Amino acid sequence: MSAFPHNPAENEVAPTSLRPAGQAGGVAPSSVYRFASRTTALKSSAIREILKVTSAPDIISFAGGLPAPELFPVEAVARSAQAVLFSDGPPALQYGVTEGHLPLREWVCAHLASTVGLSVSPDDVVITSGSQQALDLISKVLLDPGDVVLTENPAYLGALQAFQAYEARAVGLPSDEHGLQPAALLTFLETSPARPKLLYLIPNYQNPTGVTLSAARRAEVVRIAARFGIPVLEDDPYGALRFSGEALPALAAFPGARDCLYLGTSSKILAPGLRVAWLVVTDRGLREKITTAKQAADLHTSSFTQRIVLHYVSQAGVLDAHVETLRAVYRRRRDVMLAALARELPAGCAWTHPGGGLFLWVTLPAAIDTTELLHVAAREKIAFVPGAPFWVGEPVRNTLRLNFSNATEARIEEGIARLGKVLKNGML
Amino acid sequence: MSAFPHNPAENEVAPTSLRPAGQAGGVAPSSVYRFASRTTALKSSAIREILKVTSAPDIISFAGGLPAPELFPVEAVARSAQAVLFSDGPPALQYGVTEGHLPLREWVCAHLASTVGLSVSPDDVVITSGSQQALDLISKVLLDPGDVVLTENPAYLGALQAFQAYEARAVGLPSDEHGLQPAALLTFLETSPARPKLLYLIPNYQNPTGVTLSAARRAEVVRIAARFGIPVLEDDPYGALRFSGEALPALAAFPGARDCLYLGTSSKILAPGLRVAWLVVTDRGLREKITTAKQAADLHTSSFTQRIVLHYVSQAGVLDAHVETLRAVYRRRRDVMLAALARELPAGCAWTHPGGGLFLWVTLPAAIDTTELLHVAAREKIAFVPGAPFWVGEPVRNTLRLNFSNATEARIEEGIARLGKVLKNGML
Repeated sequence: MSAFPHNPAENEVAPTSLRPAGQAGGVAPSSVYRFASRTTALKSSAIREILKVTSAPDIISFAGGLPAPELFPVEAVARSAQAVLFSDGPPALQYGVTEGHLPLREWVCAHLASTVGLSVSPDDVVITSGSQQALDLISKVLLDPGDVVLTENPAYLGALQAFQAYEARAVGLPSDEHGLQPAALLTFLETSPARPKLLYLIPNYQNPTGVTLSAARRAEVVRIAARFGIPVLEDDPYGALRFSGEALPALAAFPGARDCLYLGTSSKILAPGLRVAWLVVTDRGLREKITTAKQAADLHTSSFTQRIVLHYVSQAGVLDAHVETLRAVYRRRRDVMLAALARELPAGCAWTHPGGGLFLWVTLPAAIDTTELLHVAAREKIAFVPGAPFWVGEPVRNTLRLNFSNATEARIEEGIARLGKVLKNGML
Repeated sequence: MSAFPHNPAENEVAPTSLRPAGQAGGVAPSSVYRFASRTTALKSSAIREILKVTSAPDIISFAGGLPAPELFPVEAVARSAQAVLFSDGPPALQYGVTEGHLPLREWVCAHLASTVGLSVSPDDVVITSGSQQALDLISKVLLDPGDVVLTENPAYLGALQAFQAYEARAVGLPSDEHGLQPAALLTFLETSPARPKLLYLIPNYQNPTGVTLSAARRAEVVRIAARFGIPVLEDDPYGALRFSGEALPALAAFPGARDCLYLGTSSKILAPGLRVAWLVVTDRGLREKITTAKQAADLHTSSFTQRIVLHYVSQAGVLDAHVETLRAVYRRRRDVMLAALARELPAGCAWTHPGGGLFLWVTLPAAIDTTELLHVAAREKIAFVPGAPFWVGEPVRNTLRLNFSNATEARIEEGIARLGKVLKNGML
């Protein structure tokens, strides 16, 4: 190969002519792009589209999954940002290792030991750009087209999107007020020809239903999954937002769990805009694949926001006090929404009573399609997410998801009153 | 479906028993994980592994692609972080839209118009979590297993990894001191049965060679790509780091370009640790696929770091002054490295003379394998990246990449002297 002896001349020739301004902004008359087959499964989120149409300020929206912005510790984050830049300096702005900032991974281990009974080492932790990236990376390294992933039903939409992007097939298992039904899991594994690649669960205050997998069922699910050699991915963004009682241990902390695949995040206990989450993977082979996949996906998560999260959570008592505030405010908002639902909704409606988290799940009389109802509701300046997109397989169209963390108590009362009005009119 | 009438009892049962601490940290005796077929192509970066062994402080490393940390505008970033939190408040920490923060996308358009002759609209811009994520998303929506991607040869390792992760086949086209050879591109397209999905280029101060695609060749490549309907992905992380002469327009600004697929980043002009880059996609269909894929990959890039970048670049003259500083310092370091190479390297060695950027490319006498040489060099406390991993197809083993942006002039002189010593000893 030539060693490229230097000749600046040709590099500094002006272009023959520049396109007229604006031309580059135009869309090519006919696209030159031929898409990958996996893109036929790539669907934009119904939630995202709905959020666009319901973002007008005069609409009371229970559609998003947004934390209460007025509770973000803005000044504390500002102090942490300053502290990080003046103590760590340039490394806070430089490239970092793909696995994530080691002191943050050390904190994650201590945090999980004290909250969900997991005992893992920093080597088991990979910092990701939000939980969504962990769902994408796990899908990328485990899922071939046609592979089966078992989920609750209804299930978290973002996870379904991640699985679909790799052309996997989600199979929704019956769930009830105590979460996934272990008997249904056992029956599927005993009778299905397909050996699932993964069982995906949100055991605490599930999105969209708000229900929690009971301790007895956690033990059963762990036993069944171990018996059939099915990895369990435990997604726990909401566990800290507990309104009463004691925290349940993570599934991987129950006897018989073969290894740990656990996903936590700073999004709901601090701020989603920092995009810092943690994936615990005790299986070395899987962790190496995930780290390599992350390197090809975004090199590493922001060195700056990782250090901001670490500084914030490392201040004695600060995170606990903030989480207590979140619990108290969200608990009141849940209570206000439950009372308003009981007061305003017509007969034939039922809903979950979440012990924590951000969401509750409403079931309307069978005749009502909540996707159609949303258009009526939008005219009354009230928004929710229709249940259909959360269902794996045949949707139950008379269901909907309500978020209670993002709106004030007054707006919750007003919004549920409007929903009741819409339903009573719609049911005349 | 049941509406899950509330029954807290079962949710608050304690688990039957907890695993002994430590057990969860253990690796399962035999893995339950069955990997996707694409993972056989997932290779960890040689660079990443090398960086681990050469990170000792007493080693002078020219191996990384790191900006000079002492030039990071730490205090200015701290001021921008404060300004963003106190002016924007909670939205700076809340979830954001997948496409990215609109005012930042507006700045990107103005920036590209004034620097590389592109005239695009904010709707054409998607903010990504570093350039690497854009490479991953484009690969995800365009590449099926076996698809051909044309690249320069040698080519950027991170791009090759992104293509490999989707089982595409990179084909390296001959390049020289003026970049990709258009005649080779034409010959390939006229004779190959495979119709490539993409042509990937780093036209300015390429990684790893440091060479720049000449204006005449840009015009030719655009004409050829348009004639054969091959999309051109233009990756431009280094264009602003120009040591002399005038900037060349982006390929998409040349006549005949059908559309624009251009990738820029804040990593080299501000700080890589913020992970904020921008992808211009004027083809609406492709942009919609990429946005949907990004939503499934990480929802959106950090709201906070996007706003920090916007605040920093929006201050009149601040970015220009900082880029001038980078150019002056990196130009001196390039000059010092070129002089040291001429002084210290034995006969039979040749190297590129980059007009900007971070890297230069050395070709040693044909008998030398630089991967073996690295082990000798490490003993002499000097590190570089062997050329082999950058080559598509058969590697040219007597090549290596040197970074001149990260080390001081004194350490560059000392490091190249050590390299010369290693070579003279190795060639005795």
